[in-house]
Amino acid sequence: MSRLTIWGVEGIPEITSQDQLGEIIADTCRHEPNGPLIDDDVLVVTQKIVSKAEGRLVPIDASDPLSHKQLVEQEAVRIVRRRGDLIITETKHGFVCANSGIDLSNIERGYAALLPIDSDKSARRIRDIVRAKIGVSVGVVISDTFGRPWRKGLTDVAIGIAGIAGVVDLRGTPDSLGRIMQVTEVAVADELASAAELVMGKSSGIPVAVIRGADKQWFRDSRIGELVRPPQEDLFR
Amino acid sequence: MSRLTIWGVEGIPEITSQDQLGEIIADTCRHEPNGPLIDDDVLVVTQKIVSKAEGRLVPIDASDPLSHKQLVEQEAVRIVRRRGDLIITETKHGFVCANSGIDLSNIERGYAALLPIDSDKSARRIRDIVRAKIGVSVGVVISDTFGRPWRKGLTDVAIGIAGIAGVVDLRGTPDSLGRIMQVTEVAVADELASAAELVMGKSSGIPVAVIRGADKQWFRDSRIGELVRPPQEDLFR
Repeated sequence: MSRLTIWGVEGIPEITSQDQLGEIIADTCRHEPNGPLIDDDVLVVTQKIVSKAEGRLVPIDASDPLSHKQLVEQEAVRIVRRRGDLIITETKHGFVCANSGIDLSNIERGYAALLPIDSDKSARRIRDIVRAKIGVSVGVVISDTFGRPWRKGLTDVAIGIAGIAGVVDLRGTPDSLGRIMQVTEVAVADELASAAELVMGKSSGIPVAVIRGADKQWFRDSRIGELVRPPQEDLFR
Repeated sequence: MSRLTIWGVEGIPEITSQDQLGEIIADTCRHEPNGPLIDDDVLVVTQKIVSKAEGRLVPIDASDPLSHKQLVEQEAVRIVRRRGDLIITETKHGFVCANSGIDLSNIERGYAALLPIDSDKSARRIRDIVRAKIGVSVGVVISDTFGRPWRKGLTDVAIGIAGIAGVVDLRGTPDSLGRIMQVTEVAVADELASAAELVMGKSSGIPVAVIRGADKQWFRDSRIGELVRPPQEDLFR
């Protein structure tokens, strides 16, 4: 029977370097009521803590809206839409999102957190350190909070992955009536990020969640490109 | 500590009427290894089973692509984009999705399943029947599988809700550094739908999942309009 358990990892201290991040996550989990990480757990780690660990905080004049705007444009490869203060951009990674993914909440005043330069690499690093330190193979999803064009409210999605599929392709799998299905490509990494957000909360400062029970077939080499629609397929850019 | 458990409800038989749906879910859960439903569980029920229960199957000539196309146009209030066989429409409910939400998988050959006419009502009905039958108050999310314009792969989202928030508004909640946050409206009903999809699988024929442990503050009267961006706010229609 398929069954998932998801919890927020409490007690993650302030992180100041990349090497610490994987170690501290493994350590903190070991002392948690839920116990140590095991093979095929998925770690969902919010972008903000990764950006902090990777020194992606930049000074910003919070009283000057232009300061934020310039940063957004500098981090974008293209402005997709603009209305009032809202700027939808395409980032260097190919993500289409508000403000190039830069945000100011839960960051020291006077600073903004940019997206990691290569979030897959960030995810791989956490995965490798956890394996080196405690001998356990986990999937890692770096998550961020994006809007959607036709739906209100934000959901968390994956911006970097390691050891866990981005998209699971069910094309050709027979449906429950035994016929070959048309196309069903499920964005499992995004769904894992969304599921984790439900235990993190936005104001509670829990930057890491563990998901236990994910389908073993989803654990494999992967890259975030699986989830990024190429511009030539895009009907809305 | 915040902790979610999610499982797919196995053994749901073929459903043929609305009244059965809530009863059968409550009954099936009672005989499941996970035990009966309790207050503040969230039931996530896939659109397909709801459409079946509500007689929303219509005959279609599967060998004639035009037959499908006509149905898609008939169920749309507007064609948003068209490329080849792909039609992105706005439905009568205000959803922007592929093919007006009509799909042919897991449906008897020769039939297509239309979206429920009023999915909030479908959700309320399940919620009311569960309460009447076993005296338990659950949130209900009717889920469907939608694409996203800039991301590959599909995720499940809410198309009807009852007793559980669509969007939780964290505007004005202090962030973990004690400052007032800007805007964070989390689409929890969509995240619950996505989380549930992870235990359902597309080909395994599990049409109902239970999520236990959701934040008690999310349980309230609600309507899917919370999640539908009005056309005048839309930058991409």
